[in-house]
Amino acid sequence: MQKRLQQLSEWMTEQDVDVTFINSKENIFYLTNFHTDPHERLIGLLMFRDAEPFMIVPRMESSQAKNAGWKHEIIGYSDHENPWELIKKAIEKRDVTVVEKVAFEESVLSYGRSQSLLSIFSDAKVVSVEEKLNNMRVIKDEKEIESIRKAAKMADYGIQVGIDALKEGITEMEVLATIEYELKKQGIQEMSFSTMVLFGEKSGEPHGNPGYRKLKEGDFVLFDMGVVVEGYCSDITRTFVYKSISEEQRKIYDIVLKAELASLEACKPGVRIGDLDSIARNIITKAGYGNFFPHRIGHGMGINVHEFPSMSHVNDEKLKEGMVFTIEPGIYLSDIGGVRIEDDVLITKDGYETLTKFQKQLQIIE
Amino acid sequence: MQKRLQQLSEWMTEQDVDVTFINSKENIFYLTNFHTDPHERLIGLLMFRDAEPFMIVPRMESSQAKNAGWKHEIIGYSDHENPWELIKKAIEKRDVTVVEKVAFEESVLSYGRSQSLLSIFSDAKVVSVEEKLNNMRVIKDEKEIESIRKAAKMADYGIQVGIDALKEGITEMEVLATIEYELKKQGIQEMSFSTMVLFGEKSGEPHGNPGYRKLKEGDFVLFDMGVVVEGYCSDITRTFVYKSISEEQRKIYDIVLKAELASLEACKPGVRIGDLDSIARNIITKAGYGNFFPHRIGHGMGINVHEFPSMSHVNDEKLKEGMVFTIEPGIYLSDIGGVRIEDDVLITKDGYETLTKFQKQLQIIE
Repeated sequence: MQKRLQQLSEWMTEQDVDVTFINSKENIFYLTNFHTDPHERLIGLLMFRDAEPFMIVPRMESSQAKNAGWKHEIIGYSDHENPWELIKKAIEKRDVTVVEKVAFEESVLSYGRSQSLLSIFSDAKVVSVEEKLNNMRVIKDEKEIESIRKAAKMADYGIQVGIDALKEGITEMEVLATIEYELKKQGIQEMSFSTMVLFGEKSGEPHGNPGYRKLKEGDFVLFDMGVVVEGYCSDITRTFVYKSISEEQRKIYDIVLKAELASLEACKPGVRIGDLDSIARNIITKAGYGNFFPHRIGHGMGINVHEFPSMSHVNDEKLKEGMVFTIEPGIYLSDIGGVRIEDDVLITKDGYETLTKFQKQLQIIE
Repeated sequence: MQKRLQQLSEWMTEQDVDVTFINSKENIFYLTNFHTDPHERLIGLLMFRDAEPFMIVPRMESSQAKNAGWKHEIIGYSDHENPWELIKKAIEKRDVTVVEKVAFEESVLSYGRSQSLLSIFSDAKVVSVEEKLNNMRVIKDEKEIESIRKAAKMADYGIQVGIDALKEGITEMEVLATIEYELKKQGIQEMSFSTMVLFGEKSGEPHGNPGYRKLKEGDFVLFDMGVVVEGYCSDITRTFVYKSISEEQRKIYDIVLKAELASLEACKPGVRIGDLDSIARNIITKAGYGNFFPHRIGHGMGINVHEFPSMSHVNDEKLKEGMVFTIEPGIYLSDIGGVRIEDDVLITKDGYETLTKFQKQLQIIE
């Protein structure tokens, strides 16, 4: 943590930034190890070029922030207090007078809060700290990779639980409940997003909602799920067929698998990120299903299940060792349903490793 | 829905607002019945004083927005497109030229997005639409109350499942998994927040995290949970004692219950909201535990589990028929743990009704 704060401090010096205000729970966790969900309440980490940093948190979370390892001042506020007044006082106490550049998370800080912050530093120029934090977070260190590895392993386990629960007439929600129950019993406190279990034609919506559709022979079964371990996410999708398969189902499964494997095979340091999308998209388009792959190939993953970088075909950035992201092509047909195959990928020194390891050969569940 | 859009339209006319931009998923649901979680992607509803409204959504959610009942234009965008360019074009098409006042959700719209929006309307004055929407949403209609009633009933059920799962040596996480499993089997797709099951001294943290603490005789058992039904939340807390009880445990339970009942009894239209906090706080303070009740008495509840109004002692607003909120006093001791009792309350024509109905008399679970 100390190293990360140090890096940010150096960036402030380089960029002549006088004050940095961080208020996303993800970046606060990344920088301080304090993991919380403040809901609508404000949490903030304030850093200065020439003064001691401080955190402001709801009073009842002060001790948790301290226990997480924060060595500097923690200002707790009650529900009836205005945290911005406490922030202002703490800044005055630090004798921070000339502030020409203020950095914050432009895509996180609300307009309303930005006005409260900027009213403390009239005439200061706004700089975004997000690019810097994205670039720090995009390269995962050993400990982070270990956490994601554990999360990916539990996602694999969730798929197996899902398969084992399948039987004629069971509903999507029953299978979903079984998966989450077994994962919680294994110690998972949080899923990284709403678990998806979709049967038959319902798998044809990339963002479908599980419900009371009952499983029957010939259905696609699509699982998309992830868990949080030590603050880090996983995200896996597998698609199966129940009992029997049609020709078209087999055809689209084969295309999606081919596209996924081709995109994975291209993964190594130096490769243009957008190419991973194009490689998969070309295969799907040539097979005649280009219009049925309506989303990007994947997304960065770490503390957030969706984080920087966004892996669409227009991304000109290059892959680097230590990046972790998803590769997840799909084909969605409104009548017979859809297939998506998704893995979590780590870029290694000279190639890649898939952290989700559940097998991907077409499997007809009996 | 149409009526709500109409109300907002009238407000725009009254306030001379030319353009309103709504992008919180909650207000979009409230106004259009389209329920989605776009994660980091933009969704937006744009309304104009003299032109047809439109929505902008990720392309793969266009059909869901339409199915939810939106009758006007829906603009879908792909992951590689800049939605702000599409917004700009749609506005140009509508021939909206003179824009002096733009309204948006100041506490939701990020600073970065506010800059994109404002760059389309140079020199426009910013107005917040949140107060208007808060004031609309704070009074629940029949249909909303029905949904919250169902959600509250399932929260009651969750407490019973939790009690039934208790046995010597079971962990908090095992009980939590059982509760969520049973709720999902009953059709609950989403909890309204991370379920809390805390044993013994762990209940002494108002925002504690369930883990692997094992249940033993003499422990407090605190459950705090809620579910989402038809887009509406519930939120209940009950505290029990396992097998045997100490004098101090009994004492703080009685104080919290007395405080909760007194605050509830005061609930009727016209009462100052802050008084509900003060009534409970005075009882707890007089009993010598004022320092151990570190949070507000409650919060509004509806589409969000925490929403307007914030019910702290400084709130001078008055209760009105149709408001729904929580009443949840607590006392938290770091050694023996804490007690919190929380109900969801509906303000009726001349009083109140608690929508959560699980009994509150001190119960020693055998």
